[in-house]
Amino acid sequence: MSNDIKALDNPSGIRELFRTSQLICPTSGMAPGYVQTNLAILPMSYAFDFLLFCQRNPKPCPLIEVIEPGEYKPIKSAPNADIRFDVPQYRIYKNGILSKEVENISDIWRDDLVTFLFGCSFSFEEALIESGINLSHFENNKNVSMFITNIETTPAGIFSGPTVVSMRSIPRDKLVKTIQVTSRFPNVHGAPIHIGDPELIGINDISNPDFGDVNIIKEGEVPVFWACGVTPQAVAMKSKPSLMITHSPGHMFVTDIKNHEVAVI
Amino acid sequence: MSNDIKALDNPSGIRELFRTSQLICPTSGMAPGYVQTNLAILPMSYAFDFLLFCQRNPKPCPLIEVIEPGEYKPIKSAPNADIRFDVPQYRIYKNGILSKEVENISDIWRDDLVTFLFGCSFSFEEALIESGINLSHFENNKNVSMFITNIETTPAGIFSGPTVVSMRSIPRDKLVKTIQVTSRFPNVHGAPIHIGDPELIGINDISNPDFGDVNIIKEGEVPVFWACGVTPQAVAMKSKPSLMITHSPGHMFVTDIKNHEVAVI
Repeated sequence: MSNDIKALDNPSGIRELFRTSQLICPTSGMAPGYVQTNLAILPMSYAFDFLLFCQRNPKPCPLIEVIEPGEYKPIKSAPNADIRFDVPQYRIYKNGILSKEVENISDIWRDDLVTFLFGCSFSFEEALIESGINLSHFENNKNVSMFITNIETTPAGIFSGPTVVSMRSIPRDKLVKTIQVTSRFPNVHGAPIHIGDPELIGINDISNPDFGDVNIIKEGEVPVFWACGVTPQAVAMKSKPSLMITHSPGHMFVTDIKNHEVAVI
Repeated sequence: MSNDIKALDNPSGIRELFRTSQLICPTSGMAPGYVQTNLAILPMSYAFDFLLFCQRNPKPCPLIEVIEPGEYKPIKSAPNADIRFDVPQYRIYKNGILSKEVENISDIWRDDLVTFLFGCSFSFEEALIESGINLSHFENNKNVSMFITNIETTPAGIFSGPTVVSMRSIPRDKLVKTIQVTSRFPNVHGAPIHIGDPELIGINDISNPDFGDVNIIKEGEVPVFWACGVTPQAVAMKSKPSLMITHSPGHMFVTDIKNHEVAVI
């Protein structure tokens, strides 16, 4: 047990527990200080369009690493990992429909599969907390609220659709600091894309999120919206690819990259 | 004539002069304040590998825009431009060998050609000068010195090779400011990748550049090295693609994007 607890601070140890299915659980709070990523795996026939989509939409799709067709070692972000086993839980979609949820994807692995790893908001949330900005959804033990907006992504090939955002409620006197801190992290969604009035970006009821939990905006707080990693998955799914593999919600890939390594300055 | 002079401050007017071949010349100093880009056009069969190469090597390959196969409108960077005509001079390479230099590429345009536009150092040089950092190669009316280094790029598919750098000689008391200013511009090569001792990156004779002009490092100055846009062209050429089209050296594509728009903060 003490070994397991130690492993939860260490990316390589955590991945070992997932690899051997000793542990199957969400990764929030694990390996503090290290980048966790969203996962999307697509056949090569979709890969150029999807990579171009990410290049054109870096805020919702901040690429940490793309692994070449058929390869399963994330050489840049976790060289001793195996992307077929080391995510706690995977979702397999066929023609845009959830087919099953599994603990590894070794039996369906193919030589033409291209893996995309996207930065996630855990990294900038840690930076915000370190900078003295309390995040109420953490304090209330909730997930962020996520909304489908009226902000269109820039299409690429077969991929298009609206930007999904996550909302965090920020005290008004911390707004400037919040923008400064998150601006340093463009590879994990970076600066917010909207501040205040939710209706301006097509959110008609802030207490009715499309994904995640309801979060109350307290007196003196302002809702702040960041581009969300749900966007590329939603956009890809909409195009109904013959096969697409993602992580299960909250069950992220834990890398060896420190959050501060992905800061631009 | 007064119309022409006015056009040289205006990206759209400049491109019109190039489009109609009224003007064929290097673009340094034109349309001050606007982003100019390097150009690489490759057949679709190379495009995924090349886009992946750029994603893995953002410092030498800072993508401003990628245009979809067969399209020639740079919708993001200059929506009324036509990439087949609006670069002052093009080079056509076949199997890695220079075939000819032309004023437009309309006669060889194909439906499978993918256009890559890369940020160039003109943008951060302007920011340095605005910040009070004199660049001696400008004052001496020379091109920067460029060197092939021993710093390997991260390969992708068929693309690999050494990083090419540009060198600027910076007064020692301006080093910190130089790094601060250029760090704001990751989409136009950004912060330097090496400071001081050229031998550490495989440059044995600073007075013998591989490309560009010789520049003297004066007493009290330090050579500072930036990843250079020659890198992706050199790497692509090394793989001998059946067809590759680039701009002629110094004859850049002038966009409608302002330099300060590409700053991250």
